[in-house]
Amino acid sequence: MDKIRLGHGSGGKLSQQLLQEVFLPKFDTGFLIQCQDAAIAPFNKSKLVVSTDSYVVSPIFFPGGNIGSLSIHGTINDLCMRGAKPLYIAISFIIEEGFSIEQLKEIVQSASTAAKDAGVEIIAGDTKVVERKAADKIFISTTGVGCLFDESKTCGIEQAKPEDIVIASGDIGCHGMAIMCARNNFDLETQIESDSASLKDMVHELLKADLEIHSLHDITRGGLATCLNEIAQSSKVSIDIDEENVPVSAQVRGACEILGLDPLFVASEGRLVAIVSKNSSDKALEIMHKYHYGKNARVIGDVKDAKARVNLRTTIGSTRILDMLTGEQLPRIC
Amino acid sequence: MDKIRLGHGSGGKLSQQLLQEVFLPKFDTGFLIQCQDAAIAPFNKSKLVVSTDSYVVSPIFFPGGNIGSLSIHGTINDLCMRGAKPLYIAISFIIEEGFSIEQLKEIVQSASTAAKDAGVEIIAGDTKVVERKAADKIFISTTGVGCLFDESKTCGIEQAKPEDIVIASGDIGCHGMAIMCARNNFDLETQIESDSASLKDMVHELLKADLEIHSLHDITRGGLATCLNEIAQSSKVSIDIDEENVPVSAQVRGACEILGLDPLFVASEGRLVAIVSKNSSDKALEIMHKYHYGKNARVIGDVKDAKARVNLRTTIGSTRILDMLTGEQLPRIC
Repeated sequence: MDKIRLGHGSGGKLSQQLLQEVFLPKFDTGFLIQCQDAAIAPFNKSKLVVSTDSYVVSPIFFPGGNIGSLSIHGTINDLCMRGAKPLYIAISFIIEEGFSIEQLKEIVQSASTAAKDAGVEIIAGDTKVVERKAADKIFISTTGVGCLFDESKTCGIEQAKPEDIVIASGDIGCHGMAIMCARNNFDLETQIESDSASLKDMVHELLKADLEIHSLHDITRGGLATCLNEIAQSSKVSIDIDEENVPVSAQVRGACEILGLDPLFVASEGRLVAIVSKNSSDKALEIMHKYHYGKNARVIGDVKDAKARVNLRTTIGSTRILDMLTGEQLPRIC
Repeated sequence: MDKIRLGHGSGGKLSQQLLQEVFLPKFDTGFLIQCQDAAIAPFNKSKLVVSTDSYVVSPIFFPGGNIGSLSIHGTINDLCMRGAKPLYIAISFIIEEGFSIEQLKEIVQSASTAAKDAGVEIIAGDTKVVERKAADKIFISTTGVGCLFDESKTCGIEQAKPEDIVIASGDIGCHGMAIMCARNNFDLETQIESDSASLKDMVHELLKADLEIHSLHDITRGGLATCLNEIAQSSKVSIDIDEENVPVSAQVRGACEILGLDPLFVASEGRLVAIVSKNSSDKALEIMHKYHYGKNARVIGDVKDAKARVNLRTTIGSTRILDMLTGEQLPRIC
C-alpha cells in the first residue's frame, strides 16, 4: 500500500485500513477512534455533536437531488444517528474554473432548501476556485453541529445488545443505483430516484418515544452490509439477517442484476438501520411507517451474543458470512 | 458573469460579488451576511463560534509548512479573530487516486502537530477519493468550533471606531511569496518561508489584558489591502495607512518586484490586523512583541470618521485610495 486507490474512499475495508494505518495513529484524540457517524464532545457545561463529510458525487445532478441537497442531508443524518438535533451547518465549496454560475445557483438553492426544511441554519461558508482540470466541477464539504436531543439518551454503533431487533427503515440502494444509472445514461422503464432525504423528523420522534434505541446507523457508502458490519464490530455482537426480509425495490433489484451488483453493498442516502430492544421494535416500526421514507421499514434480523460478524440467511435457506465492502464497487457515490 | 473564474476564489472583489449574488440570497441566515472570519451563534445557554475553510494550496508542500498545517492554522486563526478559544476541528480530505500514502502521512502528521500545539482536538473526519485528474492531489476542508474567551468581549470587523489605532502584527506577504517562489522554482539567495502559524496564544493574551480591542482580522487572501477594506466597509469608517510603516521584509519586497506584485495584496497566513483604542495600542504592541510571529508588530495607521474606504499615504508623500484585490493575483494560495 503506497498509493491511494479509489477503494480507500469506498467506506469499506480499504477505508478502514487507511483510517487505522494513516489517520488514527496521528489523530489520536479518542473521538475518531470510535468511528461513529458523529462525535459527542463536552462544551461548556453541556455537550455538542459534530460531523463532517466531503461530497464528490458524480454526476452532480441526479434523479432525486443534486450535490447541494445531498451534502446537507448527509450531514444532518450523521448528527441524528447519535441522537442529536442538528442546529448549524458550515459549508465549503471547491469549484472548477469555468463552472456554470447557473448550476451553482441551483446547487446552492437545493442546499438552502434542504437546510431550511430541516430547521438547520447555514452558519459559515467558504469558496475556493481551482483552475480547469484541477477539480471535477464542484466538491462540497459540510460540517454539522448539533446538541443532544436528550443528554441522558445517546445512541451509537457500539451499543447493540444480544436479543436486540434489527430494523431497516426502508428499501435499500436507491441512491447508489440512481447515480449509476445517471452516470451510464441507462434508460430503464422506471427511473430510479435517489432516496436522499433528511431523517431528522423520524429519528426525533423515535427518540422522543419511550423506547430503547441502542444504535442508529445510516446506510451510506458500502451499503447495508458495511453498515451492519460496523455495528457488529463496534458492539462485539453477531447480527443475523434474513435476506428475504431486506427491502429492495424491483427497479433497484433489476438494475443491480444488469450491472452485476449486490444491493446489500449499494449506498442509500435516506435510510438507516435501527437496533432496538425486543419490546421496542413494534412501536419503532409504527413510528417509522408514518414517514414517507420509513413506510417500507421492516425487521430484517436480530442480534446474537456471538463472534462479531454478520450472518446472512439467504433466500435459498443457506447461511453465509456477510462481509463489509471490499474494493470499490461504486466510486463517487456521495 | 455566467462562468466561475479563478478570481471568484481570490478573496477580493469577485469573491465578494459571488457572495452577494449567489450565496447570500439563498443562505440568508444572518450569519453569513456579516462576512466575519467566524460566526458566533447561540448554543444551549452559551455561545459557540464556528468557521470553515477549504484548502487547495499548490504546491501542497512549501517552505514553512504544507497543506496539513496550513488547514489547521487557518481555521484556528479565524476562530481567534472573533475572540474565541478554538476547541475542536473537523477535517475532511478529498484525495486524487494514485496520491502517495507517504505524503498523506506527512500531511496528516503536520495537521496533527499543528492541532496539538494549539491545544485543539480533531473531533471528526472524512476521506473521499476521486479518480485521477478529477482533483489535483489533495484538498482539505477544516471546520473549527470554539467558545468565546470572554462572553462579554467579542471583536469583529464591524467594530472599528474613529480615532482607533491600526496595528499589523508583523511583516506581510511571506506566505504568498513562499508559495509563488515554490511554484515557479525561484532560486532566491534567501528562501522565503511561509508565515503560516497559529496566532492563538498571542490573541488570547491580547484578550485577557484589559484592553479595548475592537477588530481582529487575519491577513489572508487578498492581502492587507483587502483585509483593511473589509474592516472599513463593515465598520463604515475610513482607515488611513502610512505605506512606509507597513512592515515588509527585504526578501518579500524583492520577490514582489521581480514578479510585479504589490506586497499589500499578497496573502499572509500568520499575521493579523488589530484595531484598538488609542490608549490600548502601546500595551497591545508590547504583548505582540513577546511572540516570535509578533516581533515586527507596528502601528501602520489610524481610523477616521469619514467615507468607508482605505487611504494610503505613499512613501513619496502622496495619498491614494487603496482598493481591495480585483481579479486574481495569486490563485490557490491557501
